[in-house]
Amino acid sequence: MKSSIKVILEAKSKGLSDCPGYRFAATSVDIRDNQSDQLDVALIVGDNSLKSAGVFTLNDVKAAPVILSMNVLEKNAESVGGIVINSGNANACTGKQGEIDAKEMSTSAQVYSKIGLPFYVCSTGRIGRKLPINKISKGIDTCSQALNDSETNAKDAAKAILTSDTFTKEATARIIYNDQTFTVAGIAKGAGMIDPDMATMLAFLVTDLDGTHINLQKSLSQANSNSFNSISIDGDMSTNDTVLLLANGKSGVDFTSDKNLKDAFDQAVEKVCYSLAQKIVSDGEKITKVVTLEIQGCASTQSAEKIARSIGTSLLVKTSFYGSDPNWGRIVDAAGYAKVGLDINKLDLDYGTVPVLRAGMAQEHLAEKWKEIVSKKHFSIHLNLNQGSSKYTFTTTDLSEDYVNFNKSE
Amino acid sequence: MKSSIKVILEAKSKGLSDCPGYRFAATSVDIRDNQSDQLDVALIVGDNSLKSAGVFTLNDVKAAPVILSMNVLEKNAESVGGIVINSGNANACTGKQGEIDAKEMSTSAQVYSKIGLPFYVCSTGRIGRKLPINKISKGIDTCSQALNDSETNAKDAAKAILTSDTFTKEATARIIYNDQTFTVAGIAKGAGMIDPDMATMLAFLVTDLDGTHINLQKSLSQANSNSFNSISIDGDMSTNDTVLLLANGKSGVDFTSDKNLKDAFDQAVEKVCYSLAQKIVSDGEKITKVVTLEIQGCASTQSAEKIARSIGTSLLVKTSFYGSDPNWGRIVDAAGYAKVGLDINKLDLDYGTVPVLRAGMAQEHLAEKWKEIVSKKHFSIHLNLNQGSSKYTFTTTDLSEDYVNFNKSE
Repeated sequence: MKSSIKVILEAKSKGLSDCPGYRFAATSVDIRDNQSDQLDVALIVGDNSLKSAGVFTLNDVKAAPVILSMNVLEKNAESVGGIVINSGNANACTGKQGEIDAKEMSTSAQVYSKIGLPFYVCSTGRIGRKLPINKISKGIDTCSQALNDSETNAKDAAKAILTSDTFTKEATARIIYNDQTFTVAGIAKGAGMIDPDMATMLAFLVTDLDGTHINLQKSLSQANSNSFNSISIDGDMSTNDTVLLLANGKSGVDFTSDKNLKDAFDQAVEKVCYSLAQKIVSDGEKITKVVTLEIQGCASTQSAEKIARSIGTSLLVKTSFYGSDPNWGRIVDAAGYAKVGLDINKLDLDYGTVPVLRAGMAQEHLAEKWKEIVSKKHFSIHLNLNQGSSKYTFTTTDLSEDYVNFNKSE
Repeated sequence: MKSSIKVILEAKSKGLSDCPGYRFAATSVDIRDNQSDQLDVALIVGDNSLKSAGVFTLNDVKAAPVILSMNVLEKNAESVGGIVINSGNANACTGKQGEIDAKEMSTSAQVYSKIGLPFYVCSTGRIGRKLPINKISKGIDTCSQALNDSETNAKDAAKAILTSDTFTKEATARIIYNDQTFTVAGIAKGAGMIDPDMATMLAFLVTDLDGTHINLQKSLSQANSNSFNSISIDGDMSTNDTVLLLANGKSGVDFTSDKNLKDAFDQAVEKVCYSLAQKIVSDGEKITKVVTLEIQGCASTQSAEKIARSIGTSLLVKTSFYGSDPNWGRIVDAAGYAKVGLDINKLDLDYGTVPVLRAGMAQEHLAEKWKEIVSKKHFSIHLNLNQGSSKYTFTTTDLSEDYVNFNKSE
C-alpha cells in the first residue's frame, strides 16, 4: 500500500489547544511582588498518563527545578502527569530551600490536580531569590480547579511562562497521513540570555501520537540542536533552560510504527522547534535586526559552527548590524579568530545575494548594494570558505543601545 | 659575592626615550584622508643592529604587515633595524597588493634610514582598504631625516600609533643591579577589539640589555600571557595584533649572564607589559568601569581561566557593571556555563572584601555594601570554587550604551 504523508506548519497556531487530549490553566499570584495581575503560574496536563522527553541546560549551575525535572525524566519518563511552571523567580542559586520548594511545586501539582503522577517543574525569572512557595502552591490549586482544553486557557498558559518577552510564542504542525491527522503543538518563552545550549528558554511540546521515551528523546534532541541551539541573542546561557515533549498517545498510533510516519514526526517536531526558536530570536531583548548566518565550504561541521558562533556573538559585528554598517572587515575578523584554519584568499562573502568578497578581495563597486541589504530588518550573510563541503546555519541579532540600557539593572 | 638587585616601575615614564641607544620620529601624512594633522607614521630604530622577539595575533586572518613581521622574526630576529608603523589603515584583507605595500614600508624604512637592516612593519586602523603607500613612503622618508632620542620624538611616536585611544600609553621599568641601571621601556595602543590573543593591540618594548632571540622570546611570551592576554574589552581579536621587544645590548651586559639578572629582566618586561595592558583597559572604547576578576580554588589554571573569560565577556555581566547593579546571579550563571564542573554549593563570592556568597548562599544582609563596591569606577570580584588550588586573574570592563553607539558604524 502506498502511503500519502504530509507535514504542514500551520500559518496560525492556537497553541497547545491545537492538540487533542491536554488541558491547561494559568493564574496570577503576584510572584514579582509588584501588585500586577500578570499571569505567573501555569499547569499543562494530559487526559491520561504521559510519555515524555526532555533537554536541559548544560550550565554547571542548574536551578533546583531543572535538577528535579532531570530526575523525573530519569525515573518516570513514561508516566508523568504534566508540567507546572512559574515565571518571575527562577528558583536558582537558592540552596537546599530551593530544592524543597521545587519539590513542593511538583507535589502540589500532583495532589491538587488529582492526577497522582509526577510533574515536571520549570521556573524562570530572577536568580538568587527564595521562591514565594505559599503563593505558588495556592496558584497551583487555583489552576487545578480551572483545567480545560479551551484556546483561552492554552493562551493563558503561553502568557504565564513569559518574562521579558513582548509576545507569546506558539507553533503547530499537522501530520496528514492517509486519512488521519496527528498534531505536534508547542509554546515557548525566550528573550534575554538566549544562546546555544538554550539559555533562559523554556519550550513545551505536546503530541497526540504515541512513542517510547527513547524514541521521543531522539526526535527532540535532534530537533533541539537544529533550532534552539542554533540561535543567539546575547551569548549568555541560563541556569534554567528546559525543553519538554509530552506524548499522550490519544491517537492510538505509535509514531515509530511506520518509517514514513517516524520521519514525518521528526520533521514536525523540528518544524515546531524551529518556528518557536525564530520567534524567540525575533523577540530578543531590544533587538532591531535578525540576521541568518550561512557558513559553508568548511572542512567539518564543527568548523562551520565555530565560525558561525564567533561571528554571531561578536560585539563589534552585532553593533555594526545595529548601525546598518556593511562592515565586512569585522565579519572576516571574527571568522578568523574562530581559528579553524580559514584561508582569506579563498573566502567568498555575500550580503543576501550581493557579492562582498570574491577569493578574499572586496567587490567595492557593489558597496551601495551592501548598504541596502544590511539596512533591512531581516537579512542573511553567506560565507563560503571553499575549503570543504560542511556547513552550519545560525541565527543572531544586532546589539542596540536599548539592550544595554534595558539590562544595566534588574 | 652577594648581589643587590631591584626592579622598579617608574611612576612617570618618558616612554621609549627612557632607554639609551634608540631613536624615534613621527609625522603626519593624512592616511585617514580627513585633512587632519594627526600623527600617523612612526619609526623606532636602534643605534646599532638589534636583537628581537615578537608575539603576533592568532587570528587565521593575519594582516599583510603581520605576515611580513613574522617572516622578519623567523629569518632576522638577531639583526633588525627597527620598527616602522602606520595608523589609520590596517592593511588587512588587502590581498596581494597588501603584501607588496607592507614590503615597501619595510624597504623604505631600511633605505631612507640608511640602516640597511630589515624592519618590522605594523599597521592599525580600518580593515579592507588599500594602503596609501605613496603618502606613507614619503612619511617614512620624513621620519628618517628627523630621528633622534629626544623625549619629544618618543612622545610623538607613542601618539602616532594610536587609533581610537584617548591617551598615549607608556611604561618604564629600571633594573638596579649593584652599581648599574638597566632599562625596559615600552609604548602601546589599544582601545577597541581588545581581548585575549591581544586584539587590535600594538606594543613595542626596548631594552639596553643584551640577549639572544631565544631568551628574549621566552621573556616576552611569558610576560604577554600574564598581561596583554589577560584583558578584555569587547571580546574581539584583531588581524593586526603585534608585540615586539628590541634589545640593543648598549649596556654590554647579557641579561642571562646571571640568574638574578635574568629573573629581574623577566620581571621588568612583565611589569612594563602589565602596566601597558592596564592602561589599554582603562582606555577601552567608551568604558566607565574597570573590573578585576580573581578566580581561585580551581582544579586547574585552564578551568580558572575559562571561568574568568566566561564572566569577563558576558554581555549581561558587563551591562550590569555599567548599571552598578550587584547582580551576582549573572556572575554565577556565566561561571556555570564555562562548564568546568563548578559546584554551586561550594562557591564563595566577594565584591572587593564584602562577602556575596558563602557555600553558594547569598549574604543578603550585606546587599547595601555590595552596591557600594560595584558603584566604584574600579573594583575587584573574587570567586573561590573551593575545588582545588589553581587561580587566574583577568581584567575586564563594563559595556555602555556609548560603546554601542560608538561602534555602530565606522
